[in-house]
Amino acid sequence: MRDIAVIGIGMTQFGELWQQSLRDLFVEAALKAIDDAGVDHIDSMYVGSMAPGLFVGQEHISALMADYLGVAPIPAVRVESACCSGGMALRLGFFEVASGHSDIVLVGGVEKMNDGADVTYALATAADQEYEVYNGITFPGLYALIARAHMHTYGTTHEQLAAVSVKNHKHGALNPHAQFPREVSLDQVLKATVIADPLTILECSPVSDGAACAVIAPVEIAKKLGKPVIKIIGTGAATDTIALHARAEITTLTAVKHAGAAAFKMAGIGPKDVDVAEVHDCFSIAEICIIEDLGFTEKGKGGKFTEDGHTALSGEIPVNTSGGLKSKGHPVGATGIAQVVELTEQLRGTAGKRQVKDAKIALAQNMGGSGASSVVHIFKAE
Amino acid sequence: MRDIAVIGIGMTQFGELWQQSLRDLFVEAALKAIDDAGVDHIDSMYVGSMAPGLFVGQEHISALMADYLGVAPIPAVRVESACCSGGMALRLGFFEVASGHSDIVLVGGVEKMNDGADVTYALATAADQEYEVYNGITFPGLYALIARAHMHTYGTTHEQLAAVSVKNHKHGALNPHAQFPREVSLDQVLKATVIADPLTILECSPVSDGAACAVIAPVEIAKKLGKPVIKIIGTGAATDTIALHARAEITTLTAVKHAGAAAFKMAGIGPKDVDVAEVHDCFSIAEICIIEDLGFTEKGKGGKFTEDGHTALSGEIPVNTSGGLKSKGHPVGATGIAQVVELTEQLRGTAGKRQVKDAKIALAQNMGGSGASSVVHIFKAE
Repeated sequence: MRDIAVIGIGMTQFGELWQQSLRDLFVEAALKAIDDAGVDHIDSMYVGSMAPGLFVGQEHISALMADYLGVAPIPAVRVESACCSGGMALRLGFFEVASGHSDIVLVGGVEKMNDGADVTYALATAADQEYEVYNGITFPGLYALIARAHMHTYGTTHEQLAAVSVKNHKHGALNPHAQFPREVSLDQVLKATVIADPLTILECSPVSDGAACAVIAPVEIAKKLGKPVIKIIGTGAATDTIALHARAEITTLTAVKHAGAAAFKMAGIGPKDVDVAEVHDCFSIAEICIIEDLGFTEKGKGGKFTEDGHTALSGEIPVNTSGGLKSKGHPVGATGIAQVVELTEQLRGTAGKRQVKDAKIALAQNMGGSGASSVVHIFKAE
Repeated sequence: MRDIAVIGIGMTQFGELWQQSLRDLFVEAALKAIDDAGVDHIDSMYVGSMAPGLFVGQEHISALMADYLGVAPIPAVRVESACCSGGMALRLGFFEVASGHSDIVLVGGVEKMNDGADVTYALATAADQEYEVYNGITFPGLYALIARAHMHTYGTTHEQLAAVSVKNHKHGALNPHAQFPREVSLDQVLKATVIADPLTILECSPVSDGAACAVIAPVEIAKKLGKPVIKIIGTGAATDTIALHARAEITTLTAVKHAGAAAFKMAGIGPKDVDVAEVHDCFSIAEICIIEDLGFTEKGKGGKFTEDGHTALSGEIPVNTSGGLKSKGHPVGATGIAQVVELTEQLRGTAGKRQVKDAKIALAQNMGGSGASSVVHIFKAE
């Protein structure tokens, strides 16, 4: 398999973007990424998006975006794995380049969630419609169940969960693309409106519009273009039961463990080698479980690890320097590629006030549903 | 790139399957394909589906199907390109095996269209929501425009269009999986209820439930398993403007031309070398345009070519021996893989009464929207 690098990145502002349609968002991010890569063409494109049919009544957005980007007749396809559609788009684009079939591939993600649709219903279609949604539960409730189980099993406190939001908002305050670029205090998080006990609104990622794109190519092309070589050294993906109730144990996100293990194995490194990570903090408890299941800390210790500052910008393994889904925003299909945008900035050393010193190895973890899908990528600056 | 073969196939009955849910359908087809392949595991899976969110309120069906098939935690991802989601699932699975990342990959397609949803609305989301659907047009109308233009430009007659339906129903009458396995006369087609002038209901593919799956693997694994080697020798995909009105000329399906040309180039063969083809006859006019744009006959001559019997089972290039979308049924996400099922039977020599004598090379053409996406695969029996 040939070596592949990220050669260009671009993203829109994340937020309530009432002036931009789905196609506007994707095209803006794609043009930025192509411009950043400095290439004069792309061979193929992948569009990650969870539910454009439910959000804005538009499926078949692969062809739509190729058309509006002005690149038809190149091949284009949409990839969907709920909220990890973006990460999956990168993985599938990686395979196409790795196979030797194509050289320069655009991988992107987009979601337009603020357009009048019933967002909670649309998101709930990522859970088991027949057994979970039919009975009335939605995602805040599912993650609240995980939170309560984690608190019960490991003694995790609400203050520790809330520390995730405080940290991510502190990081996001430094990110010009963030939907909510402002700090929040522990007290504010704990006393905010409860959405699903114990989770307050400041522990839930927001409803967002946005797009993010990256261009990937073989390393030799990156070198010819004079681009920094941000190599993709690992990809891993995995699945779990779609319904939370079907799992033997709900505080472990098995798909995250498997996807992480596969990516680490391919990269030939371990969690201790990672300098900076973006993980899928759709709810505060998610980040706690993920940093445990990726092996950044022991199982059950994620709360204390966060509270002690180890995942802060200045900590031993900075997590979600972009502000994460919580502060940066979570246009679901775009999130996985927005993680790649942040980590590429970190590995290029161009992350400004969010820069992690001497970052060489970075990890992106993207997740779908209550953890039924997960995809992990590992990047290395050469 | 290594050589890859189809080693297993399976499909459900196509039709109004009120007793089977989306997950039931996919699992039935997947188990048949895995059983047919004779493998004890799969490494990864791709699920093609157009709009399960709109049809049955369920997105994230990749994880759902991996779960219900009992293969989690393997990676699974959904692929969507409107009605060519199935063909795209094969293409992406092909890249994963070609890259060397995985060996045995399940590629499938599924759609559950009969479950109470507004099918015409759901299908229309494959057109341009903002410029076409908003103004009231749906797919029968779009293809009727193409038909009228073809008749005007090339003198194609309604009898020639109707000949597509007559032929495909004749073939489908021999297919035990077909939704409408019975013959229709030219007179019946011409005098049936008009849906969008000139197209009658017997020129429009039906609303169907169903699933189809295939297992692919490197040729050396096929040989070790003692399976017939049905090699995938070409893959091509392309896009066009999503809106019909944006095309310079609407009787040519440019994406079909490009996808076909790419697949032929990769296979190192031309249209004259193909022994049997499955093409996307969502409407009678579609098959006419496609056989022209793939080069089976000259542009503008598709009507006469069909009327003269050249695409019949006994003709020089039998097209849609399965009955095609018209007679076999068109569960949109499943169609592209159902084509692979038929062609594998043909190349194995197990197509029974539908068998094309000495078939060695087969072509599958799958299409999305009014031709904004198309994917073509070429197979060879070794």
